[in-house]
Amino acid sequence: LKNILIIGAGKSAVFLIEYLLKEAQINNWRVTLADANLSAAEARIKDNSKGKAIQFDVANIDLLNQLIQQQDLVVSMLPAHMHGDVAKACVAYGKHMVTASYVSDTMKSLHEAAKNKGLILLNECGLDPGIDHASAMKIIHEIKAKGGEISSFKSYCGGLVSPESNTNPWGYKFSWNPRNVVLAGQNTAIFLDHKKVQHIPQNRIFTQIEPIKIEGLGHFDGYANRDSLSYIDIYGLQNVNTMLRGTLRQSGYCKAWNALLALGLADDSFIIKNAKQFTYTTLALSFLSATANDLKAAWKELVGKYWDDEVENKLAFLGFFSDEPILLEQGTPAQLLQNLLERKWQLMPEDKDMIVMQHIFEYSLDNKKYRLFSSLEEHGQDQVYTAMAKTVGLPAAIVAKLILTNQLKTSGVVIPTIKEIYNPLLKELESFDVVFKESVETI
Amino acid sequence: LKNILIIGAGKSAVFLIEYLLKEAQINNWRVTLADANLSAAEARIKDNSKGKAIQFDVANIDLLNQLIQQQDLVVSMLPAHMHGDVAKACVAYGKHMVTASYVSDTMKSLHEAAKNKGLILLNECGLDPGIDHASAMKIIHEIKAKGGEISSFKSYCGGLVSPESNTNPWGYKFSWNPRNVVLAGQNTAIFLDHKKVQHIPQNRIFTQIEPIKIEGLGHFDGYANRDSLSYIDIYGLQNVNTMLRGTLRQSGYCKAWNALLALGLADDSFIIKNAKQFTYTTLALSFLSATANDLKAAWKELVGKYWDDEVENKLAFLGFFSDEPILLEQGTPAQLLQNLLERKWQLMPEDKDMIVMQHIFEYSLDNKKYRLFSSLEEHGQDQVYTAMAKTVGLPAAIVAKLILTNQLKTSGVVIPTIKEIYNPLLKELESFDVVFKESVETI
Repeated sequence: LKNILIIGAGKSAVFLIEYLLKEAQINNWRVTLADANLSAAEARIKDNSKGKAIQFDVANIDLLNQLIQQQDLVVSMLPAHMHGDVAKACVAYGKHMVTASYVSDTMKSLHEAAKNKGLILLNECGLDPGIDHASAMKIIHEIKAKGGEISSFKSYCGGLVSPESNTNPWGYKFSWNPRNVVLAGQNTAIFLDHKKVQHIPQNRIFTQIEPIKIEGLGHFDGYANRDSLSYIDIYGLQNVNTMLRGTLRQSGYCKAWNALLALGLADDSFIIKNAKQFTYTTLALSFLSATANDLKAAWKELVGKYWDDEVENKLAFLGFFSDEPILLEQGTPAQLLQNLLERKWQLMPEDKDMIVMQHIFEYSLDNKKYRLFSSLEEHGQDQVYTAMAKTVGLPAAIVAKLILTNQLKTSGVVIPTIKEIYNPLLKELESFDVVFKESVETI
Repeated sequence: LKNILIIGAGKSAVFLIEYLLKEAQINNWRVTLADANLSAAEARIKDNSKGKAIQFDVANIDLLNQLIQQQDLVVSMLPAHMHGDVAKACVAYGKHMVTASYVSDTMKSLHEAAKNKGLILLNECGLDPGIDHASAMKIIHEIKAKGGEISSFKSYCGGLVSPESNTNPWGYKFSWNPRNVVLAGQNTAIFLDHKKVQHIPQNRIFTQIEPIKIEGLGHFDGYANRDSLSYIDIYGLQNVNTMLRGTLRQSGYCKAWNALLALGLADDSFIIKNAKQFTYTTLALSFLSATANDLKAAWKELVGKYWDDEVENKLAFLGFFSDEPILLEQGTPAQLLQNLLERKWQLMPEDKDMIVMQHIFEYSLDNKKYRLFSSLEEHGQDQVYTAMAKTVGLPAAIVAKLILTNQLKTSGVVIPTIKEIYNPLLKELESFDVVFKESVETI
């Protein structure tokens, strides 16, 4: 009998919970699902005899410690900055832990203590990070095993909307945390391009994009993500000339998002009080000048060469040229923008989201040069059973099973870049139709 | 016998300390000067029989409490975020306090407690904030007393370099904290312009400038500061159509600073490791593209219409086109830029700095409309006796004397916007040749 604690019953945990409840029936495990919202947790457990829903306040450290003592493994789907206390308790009481979040400094500091106790603290085991690591490392190891030398690695991933549900000019609806979408690209991106370290500051991330074509799906914008350099060592690609991780959006999205950014509408550093004194039109005008009356003309002049009819059309769809009312009493510009986008970019009950991931490798082997594309395309079923929830949740759930069935020898703080994790993980993901397609061309 | 504690013996405290030591001789006070650097404090006290230098660690709360118990008044010249513990101790032990910093939330929360004990917690009593409040409020009250109605208030202040020491193309040398200069304008500016609330995001603050001409000194750039709206209530200007507080730089400075900002060189959010792999030329190129080799051409294309020969000349002076070496092992782009500027913009021993402040009022009186200019121009003596230290330190010192000689009736958290403070303050500043010149024109 094994005990599993899942913390967090939100959107992205749907598949994770179902998978572990099913495995619990097979293996005679007990699953405790903890969430601040008890009825949300109960709705996920339903009448599964192996599951139990409880109410949980992460600030209640006593309850946390008490709960964790009773487990064999803890899956934390909390926001990343909340994993620290859970991880400390797991190490203190000798329990394994699984998350889909980036390795934090707190997590890193627990590596030796976890190793000494033979515990696994598995992180970055969702979609991005997660499936990207596993699928990229499998190819990297295969190319190296054949004697190949990788010179370039680029990897893009996007949480998008499936073509049949693509009903707005942005080609975008929210399948995950809207706040993260609004604040995306607010850090300088760092990557390696033809042996040169490159920086793109926040005000240019959405204009310095790369057009990406994916067979059968069409054209996308790829924009650079935060610090790609740190993955050179993690992926063992010390001789690479180009190393870039990025995000995918429908072609044209970035140009229009740039117009919002250039105006200042994604600023999260100050609060606009009495926000209802503005409409979205007059709010936008307040970022131009007191003499500007024609928003379209003034905005166009500001944005310059990055303005076109499609940008205008996307901004019109959001209501910027039709005095769309502001519904919040106050908020930062980013919060006011998010509130608008949540109305305009809502994933409706029957809507299907879509995940697209593409790795592009360049390597030389036997004096020939190759370009290898490895692509994943995953479509959601509806507003609840999203491709996002599936690809974020299943990897964590699958590796939790691998740990509980004693199939892993590793210990300490790990991510799914090692063979003993990525091989069984990718294999089981295939049984859920999460499959990468590969194509190779000579260059 | 009164006891005064001055915390902080840094650059901007020179005049403050001398003033209070002199007053101590006259009034038989004792001055304790506390600083982390004991010899710096001793150098300021010299052999003054009324002064004593002590070493001080602000983190040592026990010592802080013990020290404050012995005082009648505490002047804190610490960085703004460190005033909180000092203020709490002052209120606990019934002591007055004076700072040159903006009122913090912690400070605000002590208002009632201070009032109940008849204590004064005087803040914003330096140059800007400080002299600006006092001088503006005197004029506002005078216009109102005559029955005038103020429709527009703009106020600019700059810590600059005196014409005879103006030896570099930027027209700028550091007379105060270089870090604050590098990070200036990294918040959205908010102000009122012809009855409209206006926002300028950080990436446009140095291009949306106002040209300011000051008699006898020439042309300046005025750029908008943070939140000007909050001063509408503080100054009692509820019927004003325009309200703007800004910073002055030599004409042309802002255009060139914009080029640094647009590139991303003032970013303080990530650390560049192995910074010495770059020169300032290749660092700048890393913010363009891997194919860019001609920095000047690529930078010019990026900046577009805000590039001109003067911008190019200023950037050349900093070494951007001559492979100036980077001397720090690592740092954020802002830290690397600051390190360069500290070499290039150093105030030399015989250099004279300059303070310029200008208020511009528009008001109507007896059916006529007027524009009133009130300007302050102050020149430093050398690298130590700067106009900055004089205008920041003297107001705090003078009001400290007013408090200790029982000339103020007010209590609680106050700033120098009230008559019983600004009248004697401005009067005594005149005896130090800190004098505003006024001119009025009809409009």
